[in-house]
Amino acid sequence: MENLFWLGLVGGIIALIFAVVQAKKVLKFSEGTELMQKLAASIRKGANAYLKRQYTTVAKIFIVVFVILLILAWVGLLDNWFIPFAFVTGGIYSALAGFIGMKIATSANARTANAAHESLNRGLNVAFSSGAVMGFTVVGLGLLDVSIWFHILKYIAGFPAEKIAQTMVMFGMGASFMALFGRVGGGIFTKAADVGADLVGKVEAGIPEDDPRNPATIADNVGDNVGDVAGMGADLYESYVGSILATFALGATAYSASGMTWNAMLLPLVIAVVGVVCSVLGTFLIRTKEDATQKSLLATLRKGTYTAAVLAAIIAAPVTYFIMGSWGPYIAILAGLVAGCAIGYFTEYYTSDTYKPTQGLADSTETGAATTIIGGISLGMLSTAAPIVIIGVAIVVSFLAAGGSLSTGAANYTELFSKGLYGIGIAAVGMLSTLGITLATDAYGPVADNAGGIAEMSGLGEEVRNRTDALDSLGNTTAATGKGFAIGSAALTALALLVSYVDVVKTKVAYELDLSITNPAVLVGLFVGAMLTFIFAALTMSGVQRAAQSIVVEVRRQFREITGIMEGKADPDYASCVDLCTKGALHEMVVPSLLAIVVPVVTGLILGPEAVVGLLGGVTVTGFVVAVFMSNAGGAWDNAKKYIEAGHHGGKGSDCHKAAVIGDTVGDPFKDTSGPSLNILIKLCSTVSIVFSGLVVTVSAYLF
Amino acid sequence: MENLFWLGLVGGIIALIFAVVQAKKVLKFSEGTELMQKLAASIRKGANAYLKRQYTTVAKIFIVVFVILLILAWVGLLDNWFIPFAFVTGGIYSALAGFIGMKIATSANARTANAAHESLNRGLNVAFSSGAVMGFTVVGLGLLDVSIWFHILKYIAGFPAEKIAQTMVMFGMGASFMALFGRVGGGIFTKAADVGADLVGKVEAGIPEDDPRNPATIADNVGDNVGDVAGMGADLYESYVGSILATFALGATAYSASGMTWNAMLLPLVIAVVGVVCSVLGTFLIRTKEDATQKSLLATLRKGTYTAAVLAAIIAAPVTYFIMGSWGPYIAILAGLVAGCAIGYFTEYYTSDTYKPTQGLADSTETGAATTIIGGISLGMLSTAAPIVIIGVAIVVSFLAAGGSLSTGAANYTELFSKGLYGIGIAAVGMLSTLGITLATDAYGPVADNAGGIAEMSGLGEEVRNRTDALDSLGNTTAATGKGFAIGSAALTALALLVSYVDVVKTKVAYELDLSITNPAVLVGLFVGAMLTFIFAALTMSGVQRAAQSIVVEVRRQFREITGIMEGKADPDYASCVDLCTKGALHEMVVPSLLAIVVPVVTGLILGPEAVVGLLGGVTVTGFVVAVFMSNAGGAWDNAKKYIEAGHHGGKGSDCHKAAVIGDTVGDPFKDTSGPSLNILIKLCSTVSIVFSGLVVTVSAYLF
Repeated sequence: MENLFWLGLVGGIIALIFAVVQAKKVLKFSEGTELMQKLAASIRKGANAYLKRQYTTVAKIFIVVFVILLILAWVGLLDNWFIPFAFVTGGIYSALAGFIGMKIATSANARTANAAHESLNRGLNVAFSSGAVMGFTVVGLGLLDVSIWFHILKYIAGFPAEKIAQTMVMFGMGASFMALFGRVGGGIFTKAADVGADLVGKVEAGIPEDDPRNPATIADNVGDNVGDVAGMGADLYESYVGSILATFALGATAYSASGMTWNAMLLPLVIAVVGVVCSVLGTFLIRTKEDATQKSLLATLRKGTYTAAVLAAIIAAPVTYFIMGSWGPYIAILAGLVAGCAIGYFTEYYTSDTYKPTQGLADSTETGAATTIIGGISLGMLSTAAPIVIIGVAIVVSFLAAGGSLSTGAANYTELFSKGLYGIGIAAVGMLSTLGITLATDAYGPVADNAGGIAEMSGLGEEVRNRTDALDSLGNTTAATGKGFAIGSAALTALALLVSYVDVVKTKVAYELDLSITNPAVLVGLFVGAMLTFIFAALTMSGVQRAAQSIVVEVRRQFREITGIMEGKADPDYASCVDLCTKGALHEMVVPSLLAIVVPVVTGLILGPEAVVGLLGGVTVTGFVVAVFMSNAGGAWDNAKKYIEAGHHGGKGSDCHKAAVIGDTVGDPFKDTSGPSLNILIKLCSTVSIVFSGLVVTVSAYLF
Repeated sequence: MENLFWLGLVGGIIALIFAVVQAKKVLKFSEGTELMQKLAASIRKGANAYLKRQYTTVAKIFIVVFVILLILAWVGLLDNWFIPFAFVTGGIYSALAGFIGMKIATSANARTANAAHESLNRGLNVAFSSGAVMGFTVVGLGLLDVSIWFHILKYIAGFPAEKIAQTMVMFGMGASFMALFGRVGGGIFTKAADVGADLVGKVEAGIPEDDPRNPATIADNVGDNVGDVAGMGADLYESYVGSILATFALGATAYSASGMTWNAMLLPLVIAVVGVVCSVLGTFLIRTKEDATQKSLLATLRKGTYTAAVLAAIIAAPVTYFIMGSWGPYIAILAGLVAGCAIGYFTEYYTSDTYKPTQGLADSTETGAATTIIGGISLGMLSTAAPIVIIGVAIVVSFLAAGGSLSTGAANYTELFSKGLYGIGIAAVGMLSTLGITLATDAYGPVADNAGGIAEMSGLGEEVRNRTDALDSLGNTTAATGKGFAIGSAALTALALLVSYVDVVKTKVAYELDLSITNPAVLVGLFVGAMLTFIFAALTMSGVQRAAQSIVVEVRRQFREITGIMEGKADPDYASCVDLCTKGALHEMVVPSLLAIVVPVVTGLILGPEAVVGLLGGVTVTGFVVAVFMSNAGGAWDNAKKYIEAGHHGGKGSDCHKAAVIGDTVGDPFKDTSGPSLNILIKLCSTVSIVFSGLVVTVSAYLF
């Protein structure tokens, strides 16, 4: 099997070629009127400028960490010299995934608006294709990164299988670190602009969303691209690569005794390649008639994603049996795929206004903002039940199916146990295998959102705006499924990484680890992990608030000082708002992101590796629950507002609408900044702990 | 040492006698004018009616659980026949603690208003004495319950020390179960009335708080008594007894090898008695001059509580050394006391308007309700850091001091480990030892609040209202310290109970438990525990919302249908609001409370005892963090509103004030319903798991 790893390279190249084809397709469309071109150019310029500065800031931090890693390697506290370099390439690839996604999205927004001017279907076509560029770029770059490094370690460094696996699990750190900056920085940018624009524009000045008189409106549209697109690209790149690498490591541990290490490592890669092929096939199903309605469009999108998933599930069966010689791992893959879909369904149930929860939330606007907030918070908290039960079942099923046993009495308990844990890792890979297409349905939403903004600003008329709104709301629904996969895979990958950490530490300590929950070090670690989640959420939220505050002040200043702005006689200074958002986001993203590195390492240095295991358990569990809570509460508030705007409870401008807008504003940082960043945090903590395990073990050994 | 346990009885009787003395002192004061007497009688009547119906509902549930326990005992799945009866007595004592506290509070409210009419100092005197009745009743009943059962098991049943300890740790279940109903039911009642009264009265009709024209105003005042007083009494009774019983069990395990079981069990009881005596002494220091200012009153209250704590710390030293023959456990006790004070300090820092965080929250009202909510949520989340670090340090210090070792290599690792865990238990006992006086400073707040209501309704004039407000806000500050002790001890006690659960299960299973975090059963348990926290918080919050909604409808109906109500010509129908709150609270309290029993048992039946350990870890850690978050966010919103009402940011009626009122309304169920109930939940889950461990182990053994 060891000679089949070139399949990963091939899969990566297929995905990238497909992305280029889709990109060319998008660029064939026209950008519309001169005004539309001008607006698109401003947004592009703002997004480019932000990303440039973000990458510059992050690069400095990367250099510092890179040097620290070099020093650690030099003093012998790092497993080998490849890790610092892999850290950098992971970051570069992750940034590249976000950058390319953003590039195409800022090229597709005006084109989508213009296409939507002709028909809903054409609009979908452009937006979806640009989403596909992003989806397949992420997947392609991920497979390339993994495969190239694999071949370097195998053929140039000459490492044996186990060492390759143990080394590569550390490679995720760069991708995760970059992703966290991208998500947090982008999330703060987009929500600061959004909240700032809404608070002064919509609420105080009473002008509609995306009105060109609002100085923050370009910043708002830039935000969609740098946060929802570039941030999401980096994020899912990290998830995708992370799940494969964690499974490599678990496979090497579980199957070294039975001599099947290469097989166990090949499986996740091949499953990913199968997913790429099925995703490409799925996208061909997404074509509709010219007279398509919103409902038929949704059905089409669903057909594409579900067909890809079913195909992947079918093809994975013989492939898995061929590689592993048993059905166990296949059932784990299946469990992952089903769990992803199921979480997606419940996400939609709790956040879509076609179901009771969000409609009930809209009802609670009748008694004002306070009950709207309480209602959203309890809805979000309640919505954590289903994903947790689903993940719990997926964990147990994939563990047992892959050979694990829950009774400690079994003869070869440890080996069976490792095989079971491998099942959890491969379930995550299964869940993300069709990421190409699920991400495409997720990433086109912000493009449609932007298109709506451009349509509004360039006065394309109500009908076009209605079409882009339809696309946007369609995007919200399909994004729910995408979120299900992202969040579910994050939990499973984080658990797989936690186990890898334990495996790595075991080889480094002289004594036997006591990882039971009754060990005070583990307990304190659990507390610290839970705390880290809450501190991180608090800092990212208050970061949005502070950045938004500066936008509010600036917009108010412009309304006051630039005469004729409200009459449309004078242009607002868009650039200053973009600049303020950039500064705010870069300033606020650093501390929360660094926490993910500092807290696990410091905890380990003071309390030893057992406390780190506790911390990883605490941050994974609490982070998962809080991420679901925040994402779903935010989503429900957003859609409750849209539900009211669609004419319920008095419609736009009513008291209910005002309460709903407050809910939505609270929900913005919940669902677009803190919530999704937590998914990255939980994995970054694990990879950081693995990379720094040599340091932690050595120093804490002196302390005790 | 085994013959010194009568000390517990003596301590209990001292506390109860002191409570009677204080009660007599309160009753000597006059209830004031006829109107005041009438109002006090209405509140008393409503509170009595509610408690009667609450106890009736709870009694039915208790009977069901009692029968289930009898059946389990009959089929041999319960350790012995005493447990069902102890379950009932625990519930009765806990209810009694709440009932007596409520009785005296409803007798003291009008008296406090009348005394405040004369001077601030006299007002404090009455209110504080009634708080002391509650404080010492809780402590006295707790010591009595523990001591009486101890003597029954020792002298009538003839149990050896270990068996007494293992049996008695199950006795906490009744108290916790009752406390949960009291907190949740009372919490829903009080906040439904409060929110309902505010939303229609203050916001819609624009009449001040406690205005007699508001039909919900009596219900609001009843709520203070049934929620903040009776609920809190039952709650702290449970904490107090729980910490002693858990330490009994840990002591029996840790010291049986060294033949010091009686000593280890005696220590928590004696420390509690020392605390009673010191608390009594502390109360004598609380006397001020007639011209006392708010500041000097606070200094006096602080002098009382801190002197009691310092005295207890001093006396505990020789006592501990005498009983245990080493200084280790004493350092653990000290760690507990210091940790309680430190958490109290940080609670105050984050929630009092004399510090930056709450002032910053008040600033964020400048940009509206949304930023107020985001600000409060991030403040609350951020405020979890300090308590977690403090609890973490307390855990490690008390564990190491009491003999525990974090290096698995030690020869007698298991024995040392148990001794260390005993340290965590005794730290909780230390933290709660001066509960008599800390609870007194906590429980007088609602009395002052009620007095304010009566002063307002009976038109006693602005000056009296200002004085009761001063007392109330003083109460908020001292309550912060009390909350620190309650929340810190809850975490430590829950951990002690978790360890007891493991000890109990170990004796029942044939195989070796694998409690490491990497065990999927433990992991899934962790997830379920975190989920339970969020579901519980969601249900209690939405319970408040639904109950409040019914009050809103009713108050609106009365305003509409009863003519002359706004002109003060017709009396509103107070009783119907009280009745609605009662119904709502009783209806809404059942499901969340039953979850605490059902979820751990069902998890255990499906996934075995290891998953239960994970669940207990998850619910303890997440429950603690969420409880701190919700309590502090709620407290900060409340005080930010008061800060604005004191004239900042435009004062009452300004836009900032409106935003602050929305924040406060959201915070109400946070801090008075969900937050404090979580403290009980985490302990109830543990005792339930211990009691049902026989069932879980037997059934899950069949499944695997």
